[in-house]
Formats: sequence, C-alpha cells, structure tokens
Amino acid sequence: MRNTFGNIFTLTTFGESHGPAVGGVVDGMPAGIDIDLDFIQSELDRRRPGQSAITTSRKEADRVELLSGVFEGKSTGCPIGFVVYNTNQHSQDYENMRNLFRPSHADYSYYNKYGVRDHRGGGRSSARITISRCVAGALAKLALRHIGISIQAYTSQVGHIAIGRDYRCYDLAKAETNAVRCPDMEKAAEMERLIMEVKSDGDTIGGVITCVVKGCPVGLGEPEFGKLHAALGAAMLSINAVKGFEYGNGFAGVTERGSQQNDVFVNDGGTVTTLTNRSGGILGGISNGQDICFRVAFKPVATLLMRQETVDTEGSHTTFTARGRHDPCVLPRAVPIVEAMAAMTLLDYYMFNKSVKL
Amino acid sequence: MRNTFGNIFTLTTFGESHGPAVGGVVDGMPAGIDIDLDFIQSELDRRRPGQSAITTSRKEADRVELLSGVFEGKSTGCPIGFVVYNTNQHSQDYENMRNLFRPSHADYSYYNKYGVRDHRGGGRSSARITISRCVAGALAKLALRHIGISIQAYTSQVGHIAIGRDYRCYDLAKAETNAVRCPDMEKAAEMERLIMEVKSDGDTIGGVITCVVKGCPVGLGEPEFGKLHAALGAAMLSINAVKGFEYGNGFAGVTERGSQQNDVFVNDGGTVTTLTNRSGGILGGISNGQDICFRVAFKPVATLLMRQETVDTEGSHTTFTARGRHDPCVLPRAVPIVEAMAAMTLLDYYMFNKSVKL
Amino acid sequence: MRNTFGNIFTLTTFGESHGPAVGGVVDGMPAGIDIDLDFIQSELDRRRPGQSAITTSRKEADRVELLSGVFEGKSTGCPIGFVVYNTNQHSQDYENMRNLFRPSHADYSYYNKYGVRDHRGGGRSSARITISRCVAGALAKLALRHIGISIQAYTSQVGHIAIGRDYRCYDLAKAETNAVRCPDMEKAAEMERLIMEVKSDGDTIGGVITCVVKGCPVGLGEPEFGKLHAALGAAMLSINAVKGFEYGNGFAGVTERGSQQNDVFVNDGGTVTTLTNRSGGILGGISNGQDICFRVAFKPVATLLMRQETVDTEGSHTTFTARGRHDPCVLPRAVPIVEAMAAMTLLDYYMFNKSVKL
Amino acid sequence: MRNTFGNIFTLTTFGESHGPAVGGVVDGMPAGIDIDLDFIQSELDRRRPGQSAITTSRKEADRVELLSGVFEGKSTGCPIGFVVYNTNQHSQDYENMRNLFRPSHADYSYYNKYGVRDHRGGGRSSARITISRCVAGALAKLALRHIGISIQAYTSQVGHIAIGRDYRCYDLAKAETNAVRCPDMEKAAEMERLIMEVKSDGDTIGGVITCVVKGCPVGLGEPEFGKLHAALGAAMLSINAVKGFEYGNGFAGVTERGSQQNDVFVNDGGTVTTLTNRSGGILGGISNGQDICFRVAFKPVATLLMRQETVDTEGSHTTFTARGRHDPCVLPRAVPIVEAMAAMTLLDYYMFNKSVKL
Repeated sequence: MRNTFGNIFTLTTFGESHGPAVGGVVDGMPAGIDIDLDFIQSELDRRRPGQSAITTSRKEADRVELLSGVFEGKSTGCPIGFVVYNTNQHSQDYENMRNLFRPSHADYSYYNKYGVRDHRGGGRSSARITISRCVAGALAKLALRHIGISIQAYTSQVGHIAIGRDYRCYDLAKAETNAVRCPDMEKAAEMERLIMEVKSDGDTIGGVITCVVKGCPVGLGEPEFGKLHAALGAAMLSINAVKGFEYGNGFAGVTERGSQQNDVFVNDGGTVTTLTNRSGGILGGISNGQDICFRVAFKPVATLLMRQETVDTEGSHTTFTARGRHDPCVLPRAVPIVEAMAAMTLLDYYMFNKSVKL
Repeated sequence: MRNTFGNIFTLTTFGESHGPAVGGVVDGMPAGIDIDLDFIQSELDRRRPGQSAITTSRKEADRVELLSGVFEGKSTGCPIGFVVYNTNQHSQDYENMRNLFRPSHADYSYYNKYGVRDHRGGGRSSARITISRCVAGALAKLALRHIGISIQAYTSQVGHIAIGRDYRCYDLAKAETNAVRCPDMEKAAEMERLIMEVKSDGDTIGGVITCVVKGCPVGLGEPEFGKLHAALGAAMLSINAVKGFEYGNGFAGVTERGSQQNDVFVNDGGTVTTLTNRSGGILGGISNGQDICFRVAFKPVATLLMRQETVDTEGSHTTFTARGRHDPCVLPRAVPIVEAMAAMTLLDYYMFNKSVKL
Repeated sequence: MRNTFGNIFTLTTFGESHGPAVGGVVDGMPAGIDIDLDFIQSELDRRRPGQSAITTSRKEADRVELLSGVFEGKSTGCPIGFVVYNTNQHSQDYENMRNLFRPSHADYSYYNKYGVRDHRGGGRSSARITISRCVAGALAKLALRHIGISIQAYTSQVGHIAIGRDYRCYDLAKAETNAVRCPDMEKAAEMERLIMEVKSDGDTIGGVITCVVKGCPVGLGEPEFGKLHAALGAAMLSINAVKGFEYGNGFAGVTERGSQQNDVFVNDGGTVTTLTNRSGGILGGISNGQDICFRVAFKPVATLLMRQETVDTEGSHTTFTARGRHDPCVLPRAVPIVEAMAAMTLLDYYMFNKSVKL
Repeated sequence: MRNTFGNIFTLTTFGESHGPAVGGVVDGMPAGIDIDLDFIQSELDRRRPGQSAITTSRKEADRVELLSGVFEGKSTGCPIGFVVYNTNQHSQDYENMRNLFRPSHADYSYYNKYGVRDHRGGGRSSARITISRCVAGALAKLALRHIGISIQAYTSQVGHIAIGRDYRCYDLAKAETNAVRCPDMEKAAEMERLIMEVKSDGDTIGGVITCVVKGCPVGLGEPEFGKLHAALGAAMLSINAVKGFEYGNGFAGVTERGSQQNDVFVNDGGTVTTLTNRSGGILGGISNGQDICFRVAFKPVATLLMRQETVDTEGSHTTFTARGRHDPCVLPRAVPIVEAMAAMTLLDYYMFNKSVKL
C-alpha cells in the first residue's frame, strides 16, 4: 500500500530527492526474459532533467545499476534490486524553505503526518522518486513485448492548447520527435511557445497526457474491486501533480444518452469487435480486446520562481522565493512515467489473469 | 484485489443479481462501536430500487441481516458477516439474452475471461452487488462519527444540466429532499424532467456526482502509491458505470497557471489553513485538514429499453430488446454508494495512519 | 491478515460460536470447476460434533448453503459466499463464565485486546469457526482433483500412544475407518481407550496429526518469504490448539549429520527423483515432486469438565467448573481441518506459480 | 508474499550470493526513531562469516549503507533502502556445480520452477541473503526499544547436546560470550567440540535455537489467521535450513493432560498473571503479557565437503565434491537472524494492533 505498487508484479521504491540514492525492488518479473540494459537506460533518459529548453536545467546522469535478479542476460524470476545514485543535488537551494510550508506543496501535510520532514528538494514528495517507476516500467515493457502489448502516451493538452480527442487521427510516433511529446507538430510548437512564456514569467502550467494501449488481450481486470480501469486510475493518480483520470469517453460522455454511447458489437471476418470505442477498451472492468485509452490531468507545478506568501512552522506569515531548477511544465517528462505505470499495471494484471482458470 | 476492498478496514463481497443472496464480510471494524441497525438499513434504503418515479420500478425489500461481530449492541473487533437475500428476481426476463453480448455491457469480457457467465440480470457485474458496499459504508460511517468525519455526496450534473462547481454555494442537506439528490432545487426539477423524458424514450443518461468530506484530520494518505486521492479514485472507479474521477480543480485546473492555482497558507487565529481549496483537501497525497472534494463521472447505463444490434456467442449478428426493470439514470441511487466508498476509504486510512508513529 | 487466508485463492471468514451463523467468502476459485455439493457437505460432516463417542455430544446439523459463485453446477470465477446457521447453541451454559478468564483459553487476551468479548462458547476463538475452513478446503480439493493433487491427514499420536513416523508403512485409507482417524487399527483402539479414560476424568489430551500430500508438481513455493513450508506452517499454526509444526525429518533431524540427512538424487527410468525423503518434499521452500509430509502438534483442549481456579475481570480469585459439551481430544475432528488448510495452501500456490513465467 | 515480509512494517529484499549486492527496502519504519548506525552494523557483524573457528572462513566486510528514509539521524517515516555490496565472492568455486543438482539443496526445485538458475553460491537460495533480515531486524529492534520489548535467541541444542528447556534457569546474557551462542558455558564447550569434529569430517550438524521475547504487551496477534504464533512460525520457517517451529510446550506438551498443561491465572499484587507459562506467552493467537518463548529446528546444512552422488541437468548420474567455504553448523550465525525475524514480526503486530480500536 505505501511504497509498493502491484500485486503479482510489484515495485517497492525508496529514496528522496537529496538523499544518497533513489531505487527500488521489482518482484515478480517473469523468469527467462532478455534484460536489455540499454533500453532501460533509454527509458530513464526520457524523463531525465535537462533534456530540452522546456525542462529544468538540472543535469543529472541518472545511471541505473541493476543489483540482482539477472543472470547471463536473462531475468531469473528473483527480485531485481536497482539503484540510481543522486549526484547533482544542491541542497543549499532549499535552506530558505527549511521552516516554511510552500503553497500547494506537500510540506505541510508531510510535516503534520510524520512529525519530521526532509525539506531538501521536496524529500520523498519530489518527482525525482519517479525514476524508480521508469526503471520498473521498462522491465515491464520488456515482458509485455513478448505478449504483444505496446503502450504509448503523449501530451494532448498544455494550458488551453489541446489537440483532438481521437488518437486515431494522429501518427503517435511523432510525439517523440518534439520536446513537448505531442503528435501534432503544429500544436506541439504552440505548446512549446506557451511553456517558454510561462517559464520566463517564473510561473508554471498544467495539461493532459493521453495514453493508448494496443494489443491487450480480452480478459484483463479483476472485478469487483480490481477493475482494470480502477487499477489504471490508481496508478495514474499516484503520479505527482495528477488531479484527474478518465477512460474512454470519460467526463465528456456524461452528457450523452446510452443510445449514443453504446459500442455495437459486430463480427468482422470472424472476430467479434466494435466499430466505435467509447468504452475505452474496458467493459465491466475487464479489457475487451479494443485499444485501451485514458487521459490524465496534471496541475501546474506548485513550485514557482516568484515571490509567494505562506506561513512557517511557527505559524508566522512570511514570504519566500523558491530557488533551484524547476520544470515550468511537467508533462513532457511525465509522458514516460504514465507509460511506465500503465506497463506495470498491465503486466501485473496479465499475470494475475492466469489464475482465473486451472 | 479481486473482491476485497481496503487494507485495515476491509470489505469482501459476494453475490450475483439472480443468485440466492448478496452479502459480504467487513473485517477490521474497530471494537466497541455502537452498531445502529436502523441507520444501516436506512443507508441501504437510499440505494433501494423503486424509491421514486425516476428509478427502476423493481420492488425489493433489501433487508440486511448481520450474522456476526456484534455483541450486546457493540462491535467486537471480529469480522461482521452480513447477507441480503434476493427476493424479487425475474430471471426469465433475461432468457433472450443468454447467448448474446449486450453492447457496452460486461457480457463479452466476462464470457471471454471466465469461460462461463451467469447471464441473468448481469450476474456479478450487476449494480445489485453494490448493496454490500452500502452496508459496509454504513458501518464505516458509524465509526467515522466518533472521529468527527462526515461525508456527503450529491448529484451535480445530469446530461447537460449542471449546477455550479463550488459546493460551498449550496445547502447540501437539501440534496436528500428530492428524488435526484441535487442540492439546487430548481436544477433538481430540471434533471428530473430530463430523466423522465429519457426514460419515456427507453433511453438512459449519465451525469456527475460530487462528494464532500468534512472534518478529516491532517495526515491521512500513504505516499508513494497509497496517496489518499489515488485510493479514493480507485474506490470510485470500482463503482459500476464510472468513467472518470477528479479532485480539487481536476481537469479544469490544467488550463491555469501555478500562480492562479496555488492555495496560500494563512494563520487564521492560530490555525494554519488556506483561504482557497483548489487542492481539494489533499497535498502530496495526504489530507491537509481542508474539506476533501472530488467528482465522479457516470456514463449512461448500457441497458436500453429499445432495440439494439449485437452479435451472439456464435458470432452471428442479431438484434434484441432488453426486458426487465432498469434505471434510466443511475445517479440518484449511486449517491449513497459514492458516500459508502468514501467512508470505507477514509476509515481505512485513518486506521492505517495510526501506524506512522509509535 | 486478520480473517483472510491466502493470496490468490482466498478465504475470508466470519462468525462466532453462539452468533446467528458462521460462514465466509472464497475468492479466486478457478472458473469452470464442477461443484459437488455432496462432497462439500461430507467434508463438513467429518468435523461435525457428535459423530462418535469420543467427540463432544453436541448435535449440530451444520448444513452449508452456497450463496453465490456457482451457476448451472459450475464455478463461475466469482466469489463463493456460504453460510452455516448455528442451530443448537446453549448460551446459558456459559453464563457462569461471563466475567472470568478460563485458564489457557483466549478469554483474557481477547478481553484485553478488544475491550469487549463474546463470552458465549468462546465466541470468535471457538473451534466452531473452523467450519468455514472445511467448506473452503472442500472447494479447494475439488480444484486440486483436476491437477492430480490429493491430501490425506491422520492422527499419528494421542498422548503417549504414537504410531511409526514413516507414513509409507501404513494403508492411509484405514484412517477413516475408525473414530480416532488413525491408520494403525490396533493403535487406534488404544488411542480410543485413552480418550474415553481421559473423558471420564473430565480431562483432555493432546496429540499429533500427520499430513501427506501426493501428486504435487515440482515448483510450488515462493521464496524468499513465501516458502511452501512457511505457508503450510502458518496455515497449520492458525488452527485452534496447535502448538507446533515440522516437515520432513523436522525436530528429529537436528541430531543427525548432513551426510545422514541429505536425499540423494537418482535417475529412475528418466525421472529425477530421490530414494529417501527426509526433506519432506520441499527443497529451498519449493516442492520437489516428492510427497510432502508434515506433522502438527495439538495441545490438550483447555476446557476441562473439572473445577479450576482462576481470576475474574475484577481481578478476584475464584473457581468455576465448565458446563457445556466439549471434546476430550480435538484430534479426530481436526484431521479434516488440517487437510482443508493444506488444500487451500496448495491450490493458492499452484495458482500463484503460474505467474512465474510468461 | 514472495520477497516482502510483514504487513505494516515490511521488508522487501533482493540479491544473490554472487551478484553485485544484497539489500532491501524497509517500509513502515515509525517516524522519529533515532537511527543508531553502529547498532545496525553490530547486528550484521553477529551473522558475519569468519567470526570464529566454528563458522565458515570467508572474510566479508558486509558493510551496510542506508540510502534513504533517515534525516538528521532520525527515521522520517519514508522507506529505508539499504545495500550491502558483495566483495569477496569466489564464483569459480561453483563452476563444477553449474550443471548438477546438489542433494537436499534448492538447485533442483529452482531450476524446475524458473527454468534458469544462478548456480553460483546458491544464488537466491543462499543464506547470504539473510543479511537483509539482520539490517531490517536491527531497525525493528530500535523501534521496539521504545516500547520496552526485548528479544534474545540462543543455541539450545547442537546434534544430541541439548541444554534444559526452561530458559529461566539460564543467564541468557552469557550466550553472546561464546562462539556457539549458548548460555550454558559447559554445554557450549561441548557443542563447540562437536562442531569442530563434524567440520574436520567435512560433514555438518543441525540443532535448535530458542528465542525469548520479554516485555511484550497483552494484545498482539490477529485471529483468525494472523495469530501471533502463526506469524512467528511463518517468519522462522522462512529462514534457510529451518525444519520445525513450536511455542510454549510445543510437541512435548501433546503427551500431557489439560489439567497438567493449563496455566492458572492469579492476581499478583493487582496484576493478572500466570505462575506457569506452558502457553508460551500466547493465548488464542494473542500475546497475554507473559514472556513469549519458541523453539526453531535447523537441519544440518546440505553442503558437505565430501564426495556426494547426484544427477546433473541432463539426468546423468555423477559425483562431485563441493568446494568453497561453508559452515559446518549454521546455528551460531542463525541466532541473530531468528531475533531479527522475531523483532520484525513483533513490531509489525504492535503497529497493526493500534487499529483494533479508534
């Protein structure tokens, strides 16, 4: 529940922004999978700070070391421990925030919950700890390849700039060709301009990431409480700065009638399928063989590079200006994290589904 | 994962729409709580079919029997088993659907996952199984009373008819005075008219339920993966027909800048608080002492009382018209279910939070 | 953890000795298994009180009703709720023990843990609640049949009367032909005489149950912490009155040298096997294809039909004599419970093992 | 279940004997506890190889690094990641065993379960992975100190040499003053001589470790399935080479009558207590405030420094002689592991027990 994700394929994480290292343990990796270390590192590189002008300027190598569970290039079925040492921390940047509560940040709730907090860089609440998710997600993707499941997320909205809702209208491969990770190149350029503008104001901006899963077999999902979309929702909502989750037609579908929303089954050359996919690939909490599609809302990051008012741990009013190197918009770097969480969830449910029949 | 909800306070459910009974086991009910049977039954009555013209006309008594865990009027700390016998099932209404897949219903995915399915009334995928949630939620509410946590949900949108987003503009107590469970009496009347219209067409309509939690102490929530909103999201997404979840400003907040979204901390007569609550009462996955507020999107029910096309288990195209007694709009009866899931989640997290310190 | 057993195939139980009913929910029953109700009832009959002169004279029908999860004679993969109503409770037999702590009984620890206790018949700590285990164990056995795994337990010691340690010297089928459930008919008669003697003194006596699992495939067990024998040990130690667990050579093997204890692998006509089985069928926490064999120690029941000293809830010294109808020796009726727990554990691990490889 | 131990206070481990490192993540460490690094290292030193003539001659530094969860000397409530790098592995010692199955070792079952195995030094099945348990156990002990719970284990039997069963007859502090860790100095010398003799034969020998927990409050334990002794049993049975577990009078008590075994409650100056403790400090699965006492049986290690017969992965008969540096008797080094597992279990249950009442 706390720092472990999943049921059969699990990730347990540790680490703070300014401690010695972040890392984790993946348990339940299927045995006999080729472990492609370059691929794992490349996934980590997709979330690395400093990759473009619209992300934070921090330069961190973020090299992952696998410490166990791999023998002669293959997974052994034993837990895979891994670590990424923190190498470029500027803890002094946070000294002025040691005793105050940053607005809309986790400082206040952590301090009250635990009685202590590591104020440096957000400590455990920092987005830096999502490194572990990317590593575990890459491992999950290596396993999913064997089953034919692929996952692609992309930025579909930044501020007011949004692309169309139907992912089938885009060449999703293009998303990785621009800094924003949006498959519409024109909108991507607009989004980039907006982020640069927001950044120059010392401000931040939110947006939406869409994720599409292709090749998912029918049958994944465990009603009553382990519905596939409930698991995906919990996974996404556990990502820093996420404020909402919807799948299929989601919130937009509430205004329509059942007769407009139902997906009619047809027999397409011997295969039962649906021509529309308002259900987002999940019926009754179980995948139905169509593409799974969901959207994730991210708030604007709470850390602003402008003067803000707040109170300190003594309750006195004060003002402060955050120092440090921060992202004006988390979406470009959050795309691989969304994919990682989806990959872990799907592999977990795929393994779990094997126990439905003898 | 499958049919058990929660970690410390847990509910395990069983039952199908047309089997002998539905019920469950609540484990982790704190010892020594007064068990008010009338209150539990009244919560069940709030979701009962046939309670108004805008719900299904089925008449089911839905009387709950507690089978254990209560001694001389108080909870003993031992598991509380309970059962509600099914008494008014019309299984023959479903005979024509035995071998076909209803559009946007769980038939197809259940059949493929399990190799068998109970076609009568949706079987396990029926909303009838939410009875168990209402019973367990009522028990959770009895415990939460002692801590001062109260929960109220209400219908905030049906089709295009929506009330304002800020719950503080309404007298929430009014929600229980109309059939739609909406605190704005005028809008409630409009919603009711819309539902009656949809019903007369044999069609269905979706909407949004908003839920407000008051009195929640600071500190509930278990990062990294057990963030409070991730748990609430998973709980809500596990309810039949739910397509989306957002908390605080949710999807609407993505268009704004951080400087517009941050909630500034102030010292209000010795208490640290915030004047705005765009965060929805949760920061970094942990409650911050403000009201918790979230919204849940429900799709229009898939069962229509009109002719629909589909394929059968042999893959042949066919048409059918559902018989039976169905809700044109689930929202009025889903309000207590949303509350029940929120109550269980909060009690679970309250108990869990005790283990943060010695 | 509390009242749920297992990981993939799970049992959640409820009920007290003198409440309305005992029962539970089995979740994770594989779909498509024929549900033989007569077999389930027959397993329950093996633990029923009043089945012979050496058990308690209580007459309880203990009829089980399945409430869900079965459709047209087959399991659906959905949870199976079940209930056994309590019909022959003599609560007044316990009135004199309402405010005192019976020696070596759970009264004192329950009272202190929960602040309340149901004193009637032991409440939740009564062995009556093992009914639920027998029902779930019978369901597990129905599934294990398909895999070719069979389980037989028998009484191997009562007081000082013990049969030989090597189960291969006995025709285990004979165990079910006598009241003690011991496969050595002469020793069975001796044991029966001892129990009758103890009973006539108002006293009780302990013993050992041995359990043998045949047909278990190689590979069940989940190191590091889910070793198969650790799971079996926890399962057995959760049975009322159990004080010890050992597998293979167990405690007896500690006096020998490795060269005397090791089981040498041989190739027997193309099959790798061992000629000896001091390991008890488990190596490194994983089944190795040999018979699994373990032993379970039961203490003499704490409830004596003789005058005993104790203190009451006020701390005053007092004496009492238990009334009611009690077993002088639990072993004969515990044999099916040991089997039930083994069956659930093995099915759970069989299902779990499917997730080791893609 | 697999590589995670515990419910609220949890340990997740990783690592193999000859991989880069062993380590783990402790989740649920209460916040605000002073983290005494020297104490943690000293606990690790108690299990370190090469500490005396009767243990393996391997020299490993086994230095632990904490990677997170500690800030300014105190636990933060966030997960504590830790790592111990492997520095003195002689993988070539195992080259001759790459393709054969060592008798009574985990090779065969691992190979069949996972399809691959790391043959070097036992891989994941090596006792080297208990390092992680000692680290986590030390953290648990630091927390238990605040509650007044202390734990001491000692060697009570090696081969046929056994000390008396009643721990109250010994000064347990003496156990740490000799290499065998036995509180009876004369018997300790005998045991040491036996181990040296066995070692010179290239053979191994088993024994029993007794563990005593003092200061445990009434109320720890979660019936029906989480009985305290069931949890302790599972914890002990998960330790390499363990074959049996018993608490209180255990197997020895089965020969006695209830009237001889019951512990009578008395009022000792206002405190309810028992004069005898045949129950081993646990009644009905819940601690009763008396000392908790249990015994753990260890088999002789399977790795012998003498020629043994076996089959290889092709099924051909072969012989081999193990090389490497092995313990002739694991008990001296297993004492801190038994304590570590007990400490984790008790802290876990202490935290869990907080959720019994509001």
